Amino acid sequence: MTVPTDAAYAAKLDAQDPLARFRERFVIADSDLVYMDGNSLGRLPKDTLTFAEDVIAQQWGTRLIRSWNEGWFTVPERVGAKIARLIGAQPDEVIVADSTSVNLFKLAVATLQAQSGRSRILTDNLNFPSDLYILQGAIHLLDKQHRLEILPSPDGIHGPIAELQAQLDAQVALLTLSHTVFKSGYTYDMSAMTAAAHDVGALTLWDISHSVGSVPISLNEDQADFAIGCTYKYLNGGPGAPAFLYIRRELQERLSNPITGWMGQKDLFNFDSSYQPATGLRSFLTGTPPILSLSLIEPGVDLLLEAGLDNLRTKSEQQSQYLIALWKALLEPLGFRLNSPHNVHQRGSHISLGHSEGLRIDLTLLHDMHVLPDFRTPDNIRLGIAPLYTSFRDIHTTVMRLQQIVAERLYEKYPNETPIVT
Amino acid sequence: MTVPTDAAYAAKLDAQDPLARFRERFVIADSDLVYMDGNSLGRLPKDTLTFAEDVIAQQWGTRLIRSWNEGWFTVPERVGAKIARLIGAQPDEVIVADSTSVNLFKLAVATLQAQSGRSRILTDNLNFPSDLYILQGAIHLLDKQHRLEILPSPDGIHGPIAELQAQLDAQVALLTLSHTVFKSGYTYDMSAMTAAAHDVGALTLWDISHSVGSVPISLNEDQADFAIGCTYKYLNGGPGAPAFLYIRRELQERLSNPITGWMGQKDLFNFDSSYQPATGLRSFLTGTPPILSLSLIEPGVDLLLEAGLDNLRTKSEQQSQYLIALWKALLEPLGFRLNSPHNVHQRGSHISLGHSEGLRIDLTLLHDMHVLPDFRTPDNIRLGIAPLYTSFRDIHTTVMRLQQIVAERLYEKYPNETPIVT
Repeated sequence: MTVPTDAAYAAKLDAQDPLARFRERFVIADSDLVYMDGNSLGRLPKDTLTFAEDVIAQQWGTRLIRSWNEGWFTVPERVGAKIARLIGAQPDEVIVADSTSVNLFKLAVATLQAQSGRSRILTDNLNFPSDLYILQGAIHLLDKQHRLEILPSPDGIHGPIAELQAQLDAQVALLTLSHTVFKSGYTYDMSAMTAAAHDVGALTLWDISHSVGSVPISLNEDQADFAIGCTYKYLNGGPGAPAFLYIRRELQERLSNPITGWMGQKDLFNFDSSYQPATGLRSFLTGTPPILSLSLIEPGVDLLLEAGLDNLRTKSEQQSQYLIALWKALLEPLGFRLNSPHNVHQRGSHISLGHSEGLRIDLTLLHDMHVLPDFRTPDNIRLGIAPLYTSFRDIHTTVMRLQQIVAERLYEKYPNETPIVT
Repeated sequence: MTVPTDAAYAAKLDAQDPLARFRERFVIADSDLVYMDGNSLGRLPKDTLTFAEDVIAQQWGTRLIRSWNEGWFTVPERVGAKIARLIGAQPDEVIVADSTSVNLFKLAVATLQAQSGRSRILTDNLNFPSDLYILQGAIHLLDKQHRLEILPSPDGIHGPIAELQAQLDAQVALLTLSHTVFKSGYTYDMSAMTAAAHDVGALTLWDISHSVGSVPISLNEDQADFAIGCTYKYLNGGPGAPAFLYIRRELQERLSNPITGWMGQKDLFNFDSSYQPATGLRSFLTGTPPILSLSLIEPGVDLLLEAGLDNLRTKSEQQSQYLIALWKALLEPLGFRLNSPHNVHQRGSHISLGHSEGLRIDLTLLHDMHVLPDFRTPDNIRLGIAPLYTSFRDIHTTVMRLQQIVAERLYEKYPNETPIVT
C-alpha cells in the first residue's frame, strides 16, 4: 500500500474521520504536543475532570462516610460490568480490583490449585515481564512442583504459535499469554489458542492490557477462561488506576481467591472471625479499594462505549496502515525496521519501529520535537495509536519528524542514557 | 472526673484549644453536621482539593506519561517516609502500597516462610476481621501446617494480655494484633507485648490502622518487627487510599515478598524474564500503584506533621476524657455503657458506647439529628475523635443529642434494620 506523504492528505483523512469529534472530549493542554503514548497512559477525558470534582468534593468532602452506602461499595461491579461490554463478557464476569499483577497472582494461584495433577504452565517471552514474575512467585509459593515454560518468539515479533501448540499436553494446567504483546503489538488469535488449550484440558488466562479498548475481544465467544487487564492505557482510567479481572461464569464457583480479605467476605459487616467467601466475583476482592482512582475509570470507559469498539478498531487499522505506509516510503530507507507484524489482523493498536540509533532518536523526538513516544529495549520506538484522540495528522507529524531526526542526524546531540520509562 | 455539662463550657474548651485553627484547613461543607467518624474516613483537607487539581489536570492531563519520571515512581517511598515520622520509624522502613489486607498477606506469608519450624500464629478476637481472614488464607495457601490461635478478650473491650503472654512459646512464629482495636478502642502496650514475643523468638506484626495519626507510636523504640496500616482514617488520605507497610530495617533482607511484580523488580525497565527483587522496601511493591489515590495521601499527612502528634494526642486525651465525663453525667443514667477502656492510657482516639437500643439510636442520630457516628455490631455506637478537626462542641452536641434520643424515645421511629457501614 502506498499513500501520499504530504500533510494535506493527513488533513483530508482527519476531515473524513467519523470519530474525529472525540478528540475534543479530552484535555489537550499543549496543542503542539503530539502524544503517541496512549497505549501506555491514556489522555485525561474532560468528563473525568468534572467527575473528579464530584467524587472528591461532594462524595468525599460532603457526603463523607455515607458515600460507601451511596455507591462506593458497588463501584467494582458497576465499572466491571461496563468493561465487560468492551470485551465480550457478561456483566457479572468482570470486576475491578487491585493491580493487574495482584489479580494475576490471585487467578494463577487459584487455577493451579483447581488444576491439581497438572504441573506445567505455558507462556512466551513476549508476555509482560510482571506477568512472568508473578507466575514465578506463585509457583515458588505453592509448592515449587509446577514449572513455568517460557517459549521464545521465533523473531521477537510474532507469537510462537506452533511451539505452544506442540507443547500442549495433559500436564498443562494453564496457558497464559498477553493477547496483544507489549513490545511488538502482535495479537494472538484468542479463539484458536483457547481451543487448543481446551483440547488437552488446560485453562487459558489472557492479559488483555494492551488490547482492551482498542482491539475487539470476545471472551465469551472465544471461551476464554480468565482474563486480566489494566485500565490506564486505552481505557483512559488514569495513572495506575485499578485493574480488572474476568472469570468465566462456570468457573467462578470452582476457584478460591487466596488473598481472602473483608471485601470478599460474604457478609462484610457481620464481622465473623471466619472467612466465608461472597458469591460470584466479589469473592475475588480483597481490601478496601482506592475509591478516587477506581471511580475515575468510569468516564473513560463511557467514552469508548459511546464511540463503539468496532468503529475504533476500524480507525485504528486505518491509522496503523497509514503509519506503516509512511514508514515504508520515508523511514525504511533511513534504517528504520518495522518491529510489529505487517499483517493488520495480527496487530493491536501500537507500532514498534526499530533503529540502531533507536534510543537517541527517541530522546530527540521527546525533548526537541514535541512528540511523545515511548521506548522499549533494545531499540523499539513504540508509537501508540489511540483512535479516540490520535489524529492522522499526529501520525504524519511523527513520521516527518522521525525522518528529519535521522536525515539531519539530530540524534547525535544525545549520548546513550537511561531511556524514558512508561 | 466531673465536668460542667453546658454548651458554654464546650465553647470555652474550644477557645482554649491550641489546635483549633486546624479545623479551618478542612472542607466543612455542611456546618450543621457533627462528624464523629473521622476514625473511619477522615475529612477532606483543603490542601488535598488543591493538590488534586494539580495531580489530575497538570500531572496527568498535561505532563502525561512524563510524570512517571517526574515523580510518580517515588511517591510510595516519599509518602512512606513522611508516615514514618508519625510512627517512630526510619524513612526507609515504611512504604505505601496496595491495601492493608494485601500488605498483611505479603508480610504474613513472608514471615511464616522466614520463621520455619514454628507453626503457631497468635492473635485475639479484637483484631480486625479482615486481618483474621488474610491470616487464614495465608495458612491455607502455604501448607495448612500452621495454626492461627484467636484468643478471646476477657470482656470484649480489653486485650487478653495475660492469655497471650501465657501462650507464647518457641512454637510461635508470629504475634499479630491491632494496636488500637476497632470496636472498643483498646490500645495494646506495644513495647511490652513485643518484648514478650521476642523473649520466645516470635516476631510481631502490628495493625496500626486505628492508631496512626492519633496515637503516638514508636515502632523503632518498641522494637516492632512489622506493621501495616491504612491511610484513610486519621491520616485523611481519602476513601480507600493505599495502605502502608513497615519492616524493621534488619529484617528487610530476610523477607521475600511473595507477590513478585514489576514494581518490586530490581531494574524496572530492563524487562528481564526472571524476577530479581529490588533492594530494601521497594521489593514489597507489586503492581503499578493508583497514582491519584496514592498522591492525595500526602497533604493529610503533612497536616498531622504540622500539628505535631504529641499535641494531637494531648487534645485527643482531653477530648475523650471530656466525652466520658459527659457520658457519666448524662448518658449512663439512660442505659448507655462505656464499651471502651476507662483508662485513658489504654485507649486510642475513638469511644464506643453500648446501648440495648444501640442500632436504633445510631439511626436516629444519623438521619434526624445531624450527627454522623458509626456503628459496630452488636450495639456499639462508635464516636471517633479526630483532634485535627473535632471540636469540644462537636462532642457536647453529640452527647446532648444522644441524651435527647433516649430521654424522648425518638429511636422508636426506627425498626431494626441493616446498620450503616463504614
